[in-house]
Amino acid sequence: MTGNTWAIGVDLGATKIEVAGVDSAGGILKRMHRDTDAAGGPDTVESGIIAAAEEIMKSAGSRPAGIGVGMAGQIDPVTGMVIFAPNLDWHNVPLQEDLSGKLDQPVVVTNDVRAAAWGEWMYGAGRGYNDIVCIFVGTGVGGGIVSGGAMLAGCSNTAGEIGHITIDINGPACHCPNHGCLESLAGGWAIARDAQNAVARDPAAGAAMIRLAGGDAKSITAKIVSAAAHQGDTLASRIVDGVADALVAGCVSLVNAFNPCVLILGGGVIEGMPELVGMVDTGVHGRALGAAGMKLKVVMSELHNNAGVIGAAALAIHVLSGKGDKR
Amino acid sequence: MTGNTWAIGVDLGATKIEVAGVDSAGGILKRMHRDTDAAGGPDTVESGIIAAAEEIMKSAGSRPAGIGVGMAGQIDPVTGMVIFAPNLDWHNVPLQEDLSGKLDQPVVVTNDVRAAAWGEWMYGAGRGYNDIVCIFVGTGVGGGIVSGGAMLAGCSNTAGEIGHITIDINGPACHCPNHGCLESLAGGWAIARDAQNAVARDPAAGAAMIRLAGGDAKSITAKIVSAAAHQGDTLASRIVDGVADALVAGCVSLVNAFNPCVLILGGGVIEGMPELVGMVDTGVHGRALGAAGMKLKVVMSELHNNAGVIGAAALAIHVLSGKGDKR
Repeated sequence: MTGNTWAIGVDLGATKIEVAGVDSAGGILKRMHRDTDAAGGPDTVESGIIAAAEEIMKSAGSRPAGIGVGMAGQIDPVTGMVIFAPNLDWHNVPLQEDLSGKLDQPVVVTNDVRAAAWGEWMYGAGRGYNDIVCIFVGTGVGGGIVSGGAMLAGCSNTAGEIGHITIDINGPACHCPNHGCLESLAGGWAIARDAQNAVARDPAAGAAMIRLAGGDAKSITAKIVSAAAHQGDTLASRIVDGVADALVAGCVSLVNAFNPCVLILGGGVIEGMPELVGMVDTGVHGRALGAAGMKLKVVMSELHNNAGVIGAAALAIHVLSGKGDKR
Repeated sequence: MTGNTWAIGVDLGATKIEVAGVDSAGGILKRMHRDTDAAGGPDTVESGIIAAAEEIMKSAGSRPAGIGVGMAGQIDPVTGMVIFAPNLDWHNVPLQEDLSGKLDQPVVVTNDVRAAAWGEWMYGAGRGYNDIVCIFVGTGVGGGIVSGGAMLAGCSNTAGEIGHITIDINGPACHCPNHGCLESLAGGWAIARDAQNAVARDPAAGAAMIRLAGGDAKSITAKIVSAAAHQGDTLASRIVDGVADALVAGCVSLVNAFNPCVLILGGGVIEGMPELVGMVDTGVHGRALGAAGMKLKVVMSELHNNAGVIGAAALAIHVLSGKGDKR
C-alpha cells in the first residue's frame, strides 16, 4: 500500500464479518473474513472487527482515512448508534463510538444496503451519475438511492426501503406490517414460499426441484428454483417469470418516482438469475413513463459481492475526508 | 407592496391562467385570472401571461425577484423549455426564454405539481422540514419530493411521478403505459370510472349518484361520488373506501421509499374528501415500516388551491435569488 488515501471497509453480517483495506480507486488491498460470533454479543463482535482492522492497518504501514461499517439495521445518522439490528438482536449499541475509541480512528456506520449502494455509486455501475437507484434482491429486498448527487437518507435515516413498496394491493403478507410488498413477491424467501406451495400443489411438476432439494420439498430455496429453471424445468421457469413480473412492477414504480439515470440490480437472487436484468430492462422500458425512462439504463451490479465492503470504505473516504456527510 | 423581496407566480393550466404577486412570506399581494386560449397557441398564451405580469408589476411599483411558472408537462431543467405539455399540445416551446425576453425579467419554468410542492415546502404544511412528500390527487395524481433539503428532479427532470407507481400488479390499464398505477385506482378519472361501472352493474344501488349526475350515469364524476358519500350513500362510500385503500397502499410505498417527515395530501379529490387524510394517516402508520413511520406526520395541504401560484413564486425567489438551483 502506498501513501495514497485508503480506508477500511467492514461488512458486518449475521453470519460473517468481512474487513478489507480499499484504495481510493475502489480496489481491494487486503481482505479478511471471520465468522460473526453473534451469541457473544456486541463486545465479541467488536473485538473481531478490531483485530481484523488492526492487522490490515499493520500490513498497510499507513493510517487509513477512516473505517466504514455497513450492517443490516437502523442506524442513527449522526452518532452511528445501532438503534436496532434484527439479525444480531442488537438494540442501541454505540458501535461507531466503540470502534472509534478502541481503534483510535474515525469510524462511520451505515446500513449495509446503503453501503453497497455507495460502492456501486463510487466505483461500480453507477459511477459518474448523480441519479441512481440500486436494488438488491437477496433473501430480502433493499436499496439505496442517489438523487441530485446525494445519497437519500430521509427523516429517520431509513430512506431506500424499496423492498417494502406495495406492488400488489391484494398480495400476500410480508414480514413487515404491509402486504403485497415487492419483497413479498420477489425476495428469496418469497420465491422459496411460492416454489414450495407450487410443488405441494403439483408434486409431479415439481419433481426436478424436489430432487435438487434432496427429496424434501420444504427445503426448496430460491437457489434451487434458479438451478431448476436453468435446467429447463417448466414450473421453476414459471416461478422465475413471476419474479420478473414483480420486479418489473416494482422497478416501474422506482423509475417513475425517482427518475434515475441508472437502475442497478444486485444481490443473491439477481446473481443467481442474471437473466432477470434483461427481463427488467425490457419491462421497465415498456411500461415506465416515456420521459422517465428516456435516459434510463438498467444494469447489473458491477461490484457483486464486494459492493458492501468496498462501499463501506467509499463512504468512509467520502464522509471522513470532508467530501460530504450524506449516508 | 414594499421594497421587500417579492416574485410573480404563474399557474398555467389547460383552461385557466393564474398570475399573482407573492411576497417572501408566501402572502398573495395581487392576483389575476384569465382563461387559457389554448387554441391560440404559445404566442397567445404567452401574451396573456405577459399582460397580467405587467399589470402586477405596475401596481407593485417595484421589480420582482423574478417570475416562476408552473405548468403540466416535461420541462428542461436548465433552459425551461417546455419539451412536451400534453394538455396544451405544446412541443419544444421555449417558454422561459420567451417570457424572460419579453418581460425583461428572470423567469424559471417548472412542472405544475412540483411548483405546488415548492409552495407547501416553503410556506405550507412542509415548512421547516428537509424531507417531505407531497401527493396531489386530482383528475391525475402527481407529486413533489424533498429529500435532504433538496427538491428531487431526477435524470430527465421527471422525478416525483408518484401517480405512476404500481400498487396493483393485476390492476386496470392506466393512461400511461403501465397498469395498476396509483392514479389508475385513486385519480379522479379512475374514481369516475369505478363509480360508473358500479352503477351500471347495480343501478338501484347507484340511484343517488345517478340523481346527482342529472340522470346520466355516464356523467358521474369523482365530485359526485364525494357528494353522495357525504350524504350517506352506501355505494359511494364503498368507492371512497376503495380510494382510501389505494392511497394507503401507495403512501406506504412512498413512506418506505422516501422516509419523509411529513406526507402532505392535496388536490381536488382530497379537498372534496378531506376524510381521506385521516384514513391515510391511520393506514400508513399501521402498515409502513416502524422506523420509516416513526417521525411521520400525515397532513392536508395548507395552501390548497393556491399552492401552485405561491409555489411558482417561491421557486423564483429561491432559484433566482441564488439560494439554490433545485427545482
